[in-house]
Amino acid sequence: MSYSPRNLLDHVPHAKALAIRIDGIENGRLQLSMPWDARLVGDPLSGVLHDGAVFALLDTAQGLATVHGQTSGGLAATLSMRVDYLRPATRGQRIRAEAFCYHTSQTVAFVRAVATDDDAEHPIAISAATFTNNGRKREAGR
Amino acid sequence: MSYSPRNLLDHVPHAKALAIRIDGIENGRLQLSMPWDARLVGDPLSGVLHDGAVFALLDTAQGLATVHGQTSGGLAATLSMRVDYLRPATRGQRIRAEAFCYHTSQTVAFVRAVATDDDAEHPIAISAATFTNNGRKREAGR
Amino acid sequence: MSYSPRNLLDHVPHAKALAIRIDGIENGRLQLSMPWDARLVGDPLSGVLHDGAVFALLDTAQGLATVHGQTSGGLAATLSMRVDYLRPATRGQRIRAEAFCYHTSQTVAFVRAVATDDDAEHPIAISAATFTNNGRKREAGR
Amino acid sequence: MSYSPRNLLDHVPHAKALAIRIDGIENGRLQLSMPWDARLVGDPLSGVLHDGAVFALLDTAQGLATVHGQTSGGLAATLSMRVDYLRPATRGQRIRAEAFCYHTSQTVAFVRAVATDDDAEHPIAISAATFTNNGRKREAGR
Repeated sequence: MSYSPRNLLDHVPHAKALAIRIDGIENGRLQLSMPWDARLVGDPLSGVLHDGAVFALLDTAQGLATVHGQTSGGLAATLSMRVDYLRPATRGQRIRAEAFCYHTSQTVAFVRAVATDDDAEHPIAISAATFTNNGRKREAGR
Repeated sequence: MSYSPRNLLDHVPHAKALAIRIDGIENGRLQLSMPWDARLVGDPLSGVLHDGAVFALLDTAQGLATVHGQTSGGLAATLSMRVDYLRPATRGQRIRAEAFCYHTSQTVAFVRAVATDDDAEHPIAISAATFTNNGRKREAGR
Repeated sequence: MSYSPRNLLDHVPHAKALAIRIDGIENGRLQLSMPWDARLVGDPLSGVLHDGAVFALLDTAQGLATVHGQTSGGLAATLSMRVDYLRPATRGQRIRAEAFCYHTSQTVAFVRAVATDDDAEHPIAISAATFTNNGRKREAGR
Repeated sequence: MSYSPRNLLDHVPHAKALAIRIDGIENGRLQLSMPWDARLVGDPLSGVLHDGAVFALLDTAQGLATVHGQTSGGLAATLSMRVDYLRPATRGQRIRAEAFCYHTSQTVAFVRAVATDDDAEHPIAISAATFTNNGRKREAGR
């Protein structure tokens, strides 16, 4: 049995409902994305996605970054998360998130993520979170 | 034209998709709730809702608490939000959130919320956020 | 040997340097305060205290609220903390903080606090934090 | 008249009391540091600095990163800040912080920072904050 991010994501109903997929894993950085969808809109005039949808993508990316590289354990649970919303995402564009686990203590993992739309130079949201760390302690640099 | 929380909620597609409804408004405290739904599950073994769904309810409650009582302006945008997840919600139970706006400056509103399931004595999540304040400055106590 | 908030506070050099004292403990709510001091000022024109000083008071109150009522363990360590600064404190006034531990899991405690000056109806800052929970699990309501 | 970070820092009493200095400004990244000091200790057994002292350094670095590059305005005020404490700083070592402003809207600046001791590969704390943006809107990439 394996605890890879891909296997875990397949078993999360809400991630499936949002059509979240993994685009890449590179040097411990997890890249996920999610299509724009009319049902996820928060402001009907602008077509801007609801903050909750962006949060779900960032949270999922951070949870998978926490378990990535662990040889045991299952899904990680969010203890505390902060999201800063820098600007509205552009209507119709795919949202991408990249997450990285900075540090793990015996019981807690510290993770950050950035979300972008097609204008990757100007993030739409940045997040910082702590997750429960159920797996083997992993060495993590910056 | 009116900027009541009820009118605004009706126009948010993602809130409709989550079946979020307003249960009460009392002394500036907004009470919203959302049914448990299999598509919102984060962990299929336990049936626990995805953090993103709980976040969406808290965020919506806080946004409406920000505009509640304002005589102008429209939807408030989340600037920054923190959520602490205290315990998993029980499978199948309705999630309730109560939000309150602590203070508004000329440009920013400060809001808090608490989410519970049927065991209202033991919250499942608590949140703190800042929103853009587009409307008339409102007097707010604690 | 005892793990009371008073005993613990006496052994924290930075709390002594800030002249932080405990004013009361009531129903699990810890009340601390700190005098205004010219060396703690952040903006010399207004005499407003530096955010770091207000943070130190809130953080100390939350740490003591975490260990209050525990029969074992020592100082609790802050894992993650958010502070919202609602308005500047008035020059020359004592700053008061009240902290409360909402919930403790096996490894983490969830705490909130509010800081005020003489105008207690309008908080100057509110905070939410998670601390390491080293002690005996404690039952906590809201 | 100038609004450089160096000029501003000279006028903050609490930053002087903590002996905070600017070590460098590079590509919009501000580097500040602060000496270890017995009066700033949070845990007398380990000699670890109080979270409030580390917060004050991160907060000051973020505030200066917000005003850096602006042609008008003065000190920026913290609206909301999150700090994650990854590990205790080593007794006796200088603490360094690097801050960067990700984005500024018309009224709010979004900033992040990282704090380290001599082991720069393993941060001791990371922070994310919003500040009031009083100055001319500045173009900011990542």
